[in-house]
Amino acid sequence: MTLTLQDIQAAAERIQSSIMHTHFEKSHTLSSILGAGIYLKFENLQFTSSFKDRGALNKLLQLSAAERESGVIAMSAGNHAKAVAHHAQRLGIPATIVMPQDTPNVKVEDTRNFEAQVILRGSNLEEAAEHAHELAARENLLFIHPYDDEQIMAGQGTIALEILAENPELDAIAVPIGGGGLIGGIATAAKALQPGIKVIGVEVAGYPSTYNLLRGRKTKPGGSTIAEGIAVKQPGEFAMEIIRRLVDEIVIVDDETIEDAINLLLTIEKTVAEGAGAAALAAVMTKPELFAKTNTAVILSGGNIDTRILASVLMRRLVRKGRIVRYRVKIHDLPGTLADVSAAIGKLGGNILEVSHQRMFGSIPVKDADLYITVETRDAAQSEQILAQLRAIGYIAELLHE
Amino acid sequence: MTLTLQDIQAAAERIQSSIMHTHFEKSHTLSSILGAGIYLKFENLQFTSSFKDRGALNKLLQLSAAERESGVIAMSAGNHAKAVAHHAQRLGIPATIVMPQDTPNVKVEDTRNFEAQVILRGSNLEEAAEHAHELAARENLLFIHPYDDEQIMAGQGTIALEILAENPELDAIAVPIGGGGLIGGIATAAKALQPGIKVIGVEVAGYPSTYNLLRGRKTKPGGSTIAEGIAVKQPGEFAMEIIRRLVDEIVIVDDETIEDAINLLLTIEKTVAEGAGAAALAAVMTKPELFAKTNTAVILSGGNIDTRILASVLMRRLVRKGRIVRYRVKIHDLPGTLADVSAAIGKLGGNILEVSHQRMFGSIPVKDADLYITVETRDAAQSEQILAQLRAIGYIAELLHE
Repeated sequence: MTLTLQDIQAAAERIQSSIMHTHFEKSHTLSSILGAGIYLKFENLQFTSSFKDRGALNKLLQLSAAERESGVIAMSAGNHAKAVAHHAQRLGIPATIVMPQDTPNVKVEDTRNFEAQVILRGSNLEEAAEHAHELAARENLLFIHPYDDEQIMAGQGTIALEILAENPELDAIAVPIGGGGLIGGIATAAKALQPGIKVIGVEVAGYPSTYNLLRGRKTKPGGSTIAEGIAVKQPGEFAMEIIRRLVDEIVIVDDETIEDAINLLLTIEKTVAEGAGAAALAAVMTKPELFAKTNTAVILSGGNIDTRILASVLMRRLVRKGRIVRYRVKIHDLPGTLADVSAAIGKLGGNILEVSHQRMFGSIPVKDADLYITVETRDAAQSEQILAQLRAIGYIAELLHE
Repeated sequence: MTLTLQDIQAAAERIQSSIMHTHFEKSHTLSSILGAGIYLKFENLQFTSSFKDRGALNKLLQLSAAERESGVIAMSAGNHAKAVAHHAQRLGIPATIVMPQDTPNVKVEDTRNFEAQVILRGSNLEEAAEHAHELAARENLLFIHPYDDEQIMAGQGTIALEILAENPELDAIAVPIGGGGLIGGIATAAKALQPGIKVIGVEVAGYPSTYNLLRGRKTKPGGSTIAEGIAVKQPGEFAMEIIRRLVDEIVIVDDETIEDAINLLLTIEKTVAEGAGAAALAAVMTKPELFAKTNTAVILSGGNIDTRILASVLMRRLVRKGRIVRYRVKIHDLPGTLADVSAAIGKLGGNILEVSHQRMFGSIPVKDADLYITVETRDAAQSEQILAQLRAIGYIAELLHE
């Protein structure tokens, strides 16, 4: 495989009328918080809410007449599935998508809405992929790989053309790495147009696959992460070759920083990023010294996040910031006690969210109880003020930090 | 007071270099869901995350040298406070903001970050306003009204110039009404430029203040709502005169529909709207027949929503869609029972979020208990499947709908 700037420019020409030229904007607030010029590329606002539209469309537009007629197949439970299904539908190409059996129905329905045939098979991605390859061979369908494909990669690289055309003064581009298709395309275009620009890859702590390959490290990738879009155990071979040649640095980010980045994007930019989509911003937060005083393009690669996960990211952040706290208050099991405690909290402006009594465990006298109270406060200072007041009116009270 | 198209055009000229010309885009997915051409005006992406920037800046730019020097004062716990503070800071004008005593600290800090002097006074908006007026008189500060002011209204009207310049084929504009400043400005500009266009105002059910004035109805406004930005008891007099003359219809929306609209904007558009900011979309959902086959501009007026409120909107939606459900299962209080029940749920793909036992209430034999289990499922069909399975293995189980 080879990939050149010309391939990427040809891809841009090919796909431009059916792809959103997404916004690319400086965030003044994030820049001032992070001490670097932060330019956001909103690929989360792409039609199927990720950059995958670009590669999928570039691939589909180059099929032969025979390939168009017999159809395509892909394996994905995520953004690649939606992108292939959507553009195949637009172009009238039959599409089959294989997903693991336990894929959430929301994702299955999203893909079926694009008239793709969805097949649920296999208990994990590997088994689903195996089935997809078998089916491709048996039914003469073209298998569309999510990243290890030069046409896919050329499509993803068109992002670099857009951002450099809008702001040629960039010093760096921060790009999440899953299979490597996105960074392979972006690095090829960016380095050809502006050899001095730094391309910085971002991986999530549980899956530092390219980092390990580059450093000869052997840690076993795995585990749960909010950035499932880049939780890839084996990057593409072709992408790896480009990464070795063109990527300047790899930053590893942890889940907590990604959650913080999702929160910042939501509260400041009013935009929804999925875990992988916020990883590049998390990299700037993780290694501020690497980005200090640069102008950096941060690729928000996707916005497909489950709303329950998003809700819990928001709540966990409030807990970490001390805006939702839990008190343990030792009480005598007598009428009026809860009223007394809650009046004290309420008077100081605390909003009680949840109350529970604990009578059986620990060394509690039989007539006493532990009261656990979850309270929303204005800030950490108010939480401490409430604690002090509970103590002042005679209760043995603690602020729990776990 | 008077307000003309020329005033609004002059305001546009005055403010353009320091105001974001926010995106105005057709949403293909919302259009297909709602059966109308839906064009979104993203005022939630304005610098302080609401349209209030426009009016505040237009006002501040017309102060006399003496007024600039002595400074301005405003009363608001919300978007008007941020907008006045931000632009006063930029222009070097001293700003004082009066907020009610119980204003969440986040909002106080947001405003203090713009170097405004924040004074917490009064137990409600009326008392805070009274104090602001006293202070304005005593310290010779110019009071900046949030809506009943022609310069404020001229600033808000610039939104109409932008959307009509980009899409002159619009049939209607849906605009939230709080005090009436936004719709007063938009209606004046839009009807002058395109007399046939419909201007549709949107109020929230608890606060149908202009609707009542127009229809001579007398219901007492009040109560809690997610759309606190338009929970106004008394619209501006000048705005009311414009509304009588130029607004074609008023749609009343309830909180549940606003929550659905926030969800749609978040999941489909990947954008964060506050309650008032999603009200105009909620109007299209509430009265689809009014908008059918039109091209309608929907003003997303703001994006400042508390993250705890947003998280709970997301979770409540999952409950309403049957993706989070609660079972009550009658069990014998014996070792192994919870394992048995949770194995059955897990095998069918349900994800247990919370478990509690209830032993004391109701007509439960002393050796038995009620088990309450909160489960995340793929969809309503899977919830029913789990219920059937629990019954099949011998439990008395119910799906609770409250």
